[in-house]
Amino acid sequence: MSNGKYKALWLEDRSLVVIDQTKLPFAYETKRLNTSEDAVNAISNMTVRGAGVIGNVGAFGVYLAAVESDGDLAKIEKLAAQIRVARPTAVNLAWAVDRMLRVIRNSQDVIDRARQEAIDITDEDVVNSQKIGEFGCEIIKKLAQAKHGETVNILTHCNAGWLAIADRGTALAPIYEAFDRGLNIHVWVDETRPRNQGANLTTWELEQQGIPHTLIADNTGGLLMQYGMVDMCIVGADRVTRCGDVVNKIGTYLKALAATANHLPFYVALPASTLDMQMRDAVKEVEIETRSEDEVLYMHGIDDVGAINRIRIAPRQTKAANYAFDITPAHLVTGLITERGICAASEATITQMFDDLI
Amino acid sequence: MSNGKYKALWLEDRSLVVIDQTKLPFAYETKRLNTSEDAVNAISNMTVRGAGVIGNVGAFGVYLAAVESDGDLAKIEKLAAQIRVARPTAVNLAWAVDRMLRVIRNSQDVIDRARQEAIDITDEDVVNSQKIGEFGCEIIKKLAQAKHGETVNILTHCNAGWLAIADRGTALAPIYEAFDRGLNIHVWVDETRPRNQGANLTTWELEQQGIPHTLIADNTGGLLMQYGMVDMCIVGADRVTRCGDVVNKIGTYLKALAATANHLPFYVALPASTLDMQMRDAVKEVEIETRSEDEVLYMHGIDDVGAINRIRIAPRQTKAANYAFDITPAHLVTGLITERGICAASEATITQMFDDLI
Repeated sequence: MSNGKYKALWLEDRSLVVIDQTKLPFAYETKRLNTSEDAVNAISNMTVRGAGVIGNVGAFGVYLAAVESDGDLAKIEKLAAQIRVARPTAVNLAWAVDRMLRVIRNSQDVIDRARQEAIDITDEDVVNSQKIGEFGCEIIKKLAQAKHGETVNILTHCNAGWLAIADRGTALAPIYEAFDRGLNIHVWVDETRPRNQGANLTTWELEQQGIPHTLIADNTGGLLMQYGMVDMCIVGADRVTRCGDVVNKIGTYLKALAATANHLPFYVALPASTLDMQMRDAVKEVEIETRSEDEVLYMHGIDDVGAINRIRIAPRQTKAANYAFDITPAHLVTGLITERGICAASEATITQMFDDLI
Repeated sequence: MSNGKYKALWLEDRSLVVIDQTKLPFAYETKRLNTSEDAVNAISNMTVRGAGVIGNVGAFGVYLAAVESDGDLAKIEKLAAQIRVARPTAVNLAWAVDRMLRVIRNSQDVIDRARQEAIDITDEDVVNSQKIGEFGCEIIKKLAQAKHGETVNILTHCNAGWLAIADRGTALAPIYEAFDRGLNIHVWVDETRPRNQGANLTTWELEQQGIPHTLIADNTGGLLMQYGMVDMCIVGADRVTRCGDVVNKIGTYLKALAATANHLPFYVALPASTLDMQMRDAVKEVEIETRSEDEVLYMHGIDDVGAINRIRIAPRQTKAANYAFDITPAHLVTGLITERGICAASEATITQMFDDLI
């Protein structure tokens, strides 16, 4: 958070230090990334995850590439190409790597320039996150007023807090802001199978801040909406098309369908860097990332003697499929909460509000 | 299955033997129920689960009550009242207990009559299950014809196979039938958090029969439907109102929303005993069963050294909510697959086809 206590990554000399998010909430451990290859691995094995933080680590990865290449542009470009594809879905990664390369190509002092640009990219996320928090909080405030101070129940999916995007996240930024302003809120946290980012990370983040929350199975949100126990949904995004289709963690689409069916607002929080102005229809154009079936077949947690352990939840012979993201069509999205304000999930509004990105 | 190899429960002398479904798929163990209290515990702690099998164990529980009460009707009624409420949602349990009491009240030889009636109830489930299989298979056959022999992909949620309803289940009965008839099918198995009946039981059942299937996180079905990878859904039910609202395992509603949004057939398979002709609007009239938060916070499985173990997936302080069922409104249901044929999920059709139950 903005007090500097909570950060997902930071520089130490010529290394990047990141929180190992695969160990949370059971252990707080950091990892030191010394080379661009370390950055690629940290992104692909999900030591770090979350659209923004992946972009930040990608940017610092280009800086590490510059250091290890002694500023040789051809070598940097080659290493950067590997960083750029370390994970396919979050548009921020390619965006950050491209921006890094664009800047250092025109620079005399490549290493220093790369370092500064990566710092700038992360600092911009901090500012964007704060603005997203403020704009999103206005929506929560209106709901609180309409409920005359009764608790506003907000459902979120996956983790889009400060572990995902510096320094207050996207989806959680309005929640942090609302809580800081004394609004009476409660958060339903989807566990977010198969990687359990909700059960592992969002619960942990909210606990640190003392924000009231309850963990639920991903199956539960529809029922809660049917029974009037949800007032709004806020999720993050890995990619949003110019027409407003949202690519986000698998299962997001199901919650958006339920919100729409129950006439509840469904908001997506994102910085401009998550917009993909080249893409229109996500179902037709996005290739959905598939990951190891082991993420479905095995669960990680802490056992009764306090050790981090894994268990298999299916028979030995069972095969699983592991699709990481789904598409929430624009018509199910009430609005996009961005650092420039609330934006309708439509091509007309997006291209108007973000005309500099076209 | 009908060859007698697969049975969820059977009589041995004056005891009921059941498969301990909390141990599957990691260990095959049976439990001997000697008293009506054993039956209550087996139902409430989910040693047995599934609407039909709960009803069967409830019926045999009344028989055990008759044995331990030496045929004393007042005592039996008292014990039966406890069985009747061992779990609240599945209408079959109350239905079976009520039927048992109705029959033995008019009987000379209470114990023998109770034994026979419990056997009859279970045998009727066998016949119903076979008929549901045959009627449901016709739907799959039509899809197979329309796809010219290409694989028909069927999504199912939770477990409604022979572990749930003797002897081929409800939702799985058409799948077993289609496979036996040589149709080219593949089943997407929702893991079904928080109790993982899909990951633990449905995978295990399908594996025994050699039916192609793939385990998926509950979050995945919407994406598969968006990308044309699902041709139909079939689920079971714990209660269906006279208007066609379906009470089933939490998460069913989300899949029904996705099926409707993607113009895919969503079928619910059930015997007449699952109909609740007293109830109309499930959202207004059903009290949703809540269970221990530990079912969300802990996962059971087999660890790397082969022991059944449990792990906690959330921080120590995290609280969870565990709602067991949700409501799928009738308008999202393509049809009910019953032992009397396919029935529209509407009051007009249900009250016509099941007028003897009114």
